Amino acid sequence: MLEDKNQERTSLSSLGEFQLIEHLTKDIEAKQPTTLKGIGDDGAVLNFKDKRTVVSTDMLVEGVHFDLAYMPLKHLGYKAVVVNLSDICAMNAKPTQITVSIAVSNRFPLEALEELYSGIRYAARIYDVDIVGGDTTSSQKGMILSITAIGESEEDDITYRVGANPTDLLVMSGDVGAAYMGLQVLEREKQVFEVNPNNQPDLEAYDYLIERQLKPEARKDVKDLLKALEIKPTAMIDISDGLSSEILHICKQSNVGCNLYENKIPLDPQLISVCEEFNLDSTTVALNGGEDYELLFTITMEDFEKIKANPNFSIIGHMTQESEGVHLITRDDTKIPLKARGWDAVDEA
Amino acid sequence: MLEDKNQERTSLSSLGEFQLIEHLTKDIEAKQPTTLKGIGDDGAVLNFKDKRTVVSTDMLVEGVHFDLAYMPLKHLGYKAVVVNLSDICAMNAKPTQITVSIAVSNRFPLEALEELYSGIRYAARIYDVDIVGGDTTSSQKGMILSITAIGESEEDDITYRVGANPTDLLVMSGDVGAAYMGLQVLEREKQVFEVNPNNQPDLEAYDYLIERQLKPEARKDVKDLLKALEIKPTAMIDISDGLSSEILHICKQSNVGCNLYENKIPLDPQLISVCEEFNLDSTTVALNGGEDYELLFTITMEDFEKIKANPNFSIIGHMTQESEGVHLITRDDTKIPLKARGWDAVDEA
Repeated sequence: MLEDKNQERTSLSSLGEFQLIEHLTKDIEAKQPTTLKGIGDDGAVLNFKDKRTVVSTDMLVEGVHFDLAYMPLKHLGYKAVVVNLSDICAMNAKPTQITVSIAVSNRFPLEALEELYSGIRYAARIYDVDIVGGDTTSSQKGMILSITAIGESEEDDITYRVGANPTDLLVMSGDVGAAYMGLQVLEREKQVFEVNPNNQPDLEAYDYLIERQLKPEARKDVKDLLKALEIKPTAMIDISDGLSSEILHICKQSNVGCNLYENKIPLDPQLISVCEEFNLDSTTVALNGGEDYELLFTITMEDFEKIKANPNFSIIGHMTQESEGVHLITRDDTKIPLKARGWDAVDEA
Repeated sequence: MLEDKNQERTSLSSLGEFQLIEHLTKDIEAKQPTTLKGIGDDGAVLNFKDKRTVVSTDMLVEGVHFDLAYMPLKHLGYKAVVVNLSDICAMNAKPTQITVSIAVSNRFPLEALEELYSGIRYAARIYDVDIVGGDTTSSQKGMILSITAIGESEEDDITYRVGANPTDLLVMSGDVGAAYMGLQVLEREKQVFEVNPNNQPDLEAYDYLIERQLKPEARKDVKDLLKALEIKPTAMIDISDGLSSEILHICKQSNVGCNLYENKIPLDPQLISVCEEFNLDSTTVALNGGEDYELLFTITMEDFEKIKANPNFSIIGHMTQESEGVHLITRDDTKIPLKARGWDAVDEA
């Protein structure tokens, strides 16, 4: 897309740094009541009164975290915001502001940065957060995005990774594995495209997977859903690096063990059929895939009745004493230890 | 330094991302009373109660903002923190926390990252701020640092760029131009070194300039100094891009003009002599140099008596009606318009 010579291209070097930042941020307005002053001074000024402030930061690097060959810039901007907001949601807090820093090489024209920024602003609008600061600079190579997300929460609502108890239930929102398989589909298409640039891919059969990869969403709704159910999670994390890895984080920090049931892991039907097509085991994909940005949390057993029939959540296991370890209970009732970088049936069986 | 084969080198790829982050941050403690939870969860949790929260972010890119040929990694880490804290100070707020994101190519061994982190942590200790979050990832090329600084202030103390009045005095802390001349000295030495690597430079005559470039300080003390003088500045900014550029920022945002007096601009004696050696005009360097991280602010005329004899501050001019424009009044009483990217005597005279 960047190579399309018919598009208007404005060289970044024709603009000064101030001019560029002003151009990209000129009509950004602060809407959150907690934002007293947004962009335009040395710093933003926020007022959280008696609420707690939650802060999280993430860096995305071209060639490491994204490939512009199949990631449109607008989607990249959107996703970069979402992955940061997901961290705030994983504290059971409400995202309120972001700051955005971007470094780009001069191979990108101004129009590319505008496209990226349009995705960032779209995400900010959808998630109702203010863009209150940032930096735009040149890089020696490629594009680097660094976003810091800020949120607010009542102190009693904040949920850490520490806090799970040995009898708690393990619950997650949505389904897992789809974002990873979306990436596999896109990488295959990229290879096809490289061989035959005129090939028009038909990706309808993969639409859900691709959307999960290119346009993930943060589960900002879960805080309210749980509040409505009168459930306070005991521990919470977002599923960014794969279900297996996140379960181990909660277990390590809460000093508990866990039994995860293979037949309870929520998988989209499209994921199952595409895993078959790619000859991949869908449980392996679900455990190690990453980038789903669903929330994983623990609740006390007493809350079972409140959540068991809720279509937003799946109970996928239960916590145990730490000494019992962290295991996957397979469909044929075999107990397999979970590993940080996933699970390898051949190694462990 | 990175090329010294005698040093122990641990490849970054031998560590996983979690392991690397854990290694670099393992003994970081939160000390600020506002930090409820620092590193180790999806986000940090802060509590500013009835104070305002101030947030600022900056990105530093190798080859654009720093050159590792003469910037030791520990100094780089220190400086990266300081430039961000300076923005918080420029809001007349007190820095309290930072988040640190780093992207590095695999040309850097673990020991280089440790060195960088030691500078970051040293700055955090000196400035009494907590490191509450961050990200460490690989880059395709070079090193990129993104730091977000957070601070606190009573609402009444916060000082914006907007707020200067046409009769206010223009004041700055410290002196200007030295950091820029330090860079000129270092760049000259780099060229000498490239011709003759065995040359041992004698940089004693340049020690102040080099320190201002390699180890700048944020004027965290100014907030308290002004409080003790019972002065509330009407507008404030930090001098990161050059005195000229910062004055224009205040004038534009406050809708005022300014007369800056050449003979009032505070210059270190070493700056003056090295400008002569380099055949550069010291006023031009002072106006356009940048990276001094002093604070520039305006005060009402009534506060003149309180500040006039204070060795920490120099009164360098006064604000005017916007229609009068922004001018440098030279030593021979010529009035020259100030320009954003500095001042060119030949163009304007």
